[in-house]
Amino acid sequence: MGRWEPNARGRLAQAALELYGELGYEQTTVAEIAKRAGLTERTFFRHYADKREVLFDGSSALQELFVTAVAEAPRSVAPIGAIAAGLEAVSTVFEGRREHARQRQAVIVANAELQERELIKLASMSTALADALRRRGVTGPAASLTAEAGVAVFKVGFELWLTAPEEREMSQLMRESLDELKAVTTRG
Amino acid sequence: MGRWEPNARGRLAQAALELYGELGYEQTTVAEIAKRAGLTERTFFRHYADKREVLFDGSSALQELFVTAVAEAPRSVAPIGAIAAGLEAVSTVFEGRREHARQRQAVIVANAELQERELIKLASMSTALADALRRRGVTGPAASLTAEAGVAVFKVGFELWLTAPEEREMSQLMRESLDELKAVTTRG
Repeated sequence: MGRWEPNARGRLAQAALELYGELGYEQTTVAEIAKRAGLTERTFFRHYADKREVLFDGSSALQELFVTAVAEAPRSVAPIGAIAAGLEAVSTVFEGRREHARQRQAVIVANAELQERELIKLASMSTALADALRRRGVTGPAASLTAEAGVAVFKVGFELWLTAPEEREMSQLMRESLDELKAVTTRG
Repeated sequence: MGRWEPNARGRLAQAALELYGELGYEQTTVAEIAKRAGLTERTFFRHYADKREVLFDGSSALQELFVTAVAEAPRSVAPIGAIAAGLEAVSTVFEGRREHARQRQAVIVANAELQERELIKLASMSTALADALRRRGVTGPAASLTAEAGVAVFKVGFELWLTAPEEREMSQLMRESLDELKAVTTRG
């Protein structure tokens, strides 16, 4: 096998997800992942630090996309509107990836350590969003609250997208969830 | 020393917090905690499973208090009003405990593992609140979104309470944070 394997990264990720689903995350070894992908362990470690990174590989890019969209929303847009723009941006990443996202979710739900990791990623996203809002001039607790609201909508919208009986557009579900959050906070 | 030490539990918690602050959480041993409290290690283990439990001892009771208040709010109260009742209930626990809470927070912020534990407790609180809202008849994503909103307000209100230059009533800060969340989600 040559050094430059076509789409090695994607093949390794797919092989890893399959094996985590079949054998369980803890039972799967890097050697097995590489074998399933038709690649070497050395190639695996050129792409991923360890078997956990395969699952959280996209988290930083996702956060950056969210934060950049919030930062770049027009100045005239209210904080929650900037968050809506961010939700719109992250939704594009998942288009056509529902099966992959569902496989990943099943692995994470089955393992406490991975769930903790996911919570940390979401907390980090909330902190980064609050910082981005502060750079837009949002002051005091409003920045944290708007960021937390954004992460809440992301979590719930994502879950709706994952579990819908038929695939729906994620951006639409994010908009519906944000509208629902507005409704529940003001109702009563 | 006799078997029934007056307020052994509280003395151990106070000694532990002091030592975590002075030596660092990781460096502190149960033997040192017991010694500082003027008690034996055996007494420590009668009250706490390990040195981490001293810090998270109150989390389950806090969650139960929150959930019970949500469950017992009058039927006529809207979901977010039930959450407001829950925030009111948990606030009473912290009265006169700000110094203790600040010491605890400083220990947690300094340690990644403890921060993760705190995130897990908050996620568990959100799940429990959503379940309580569903039992009140709240359906679909509204239950999760209202619960997430409640946890967001709790986090932000708690932080405001901890960091205010002069001690303020927590319940008042929780009400202000909830009002602010309502404002940020509807503005724009």
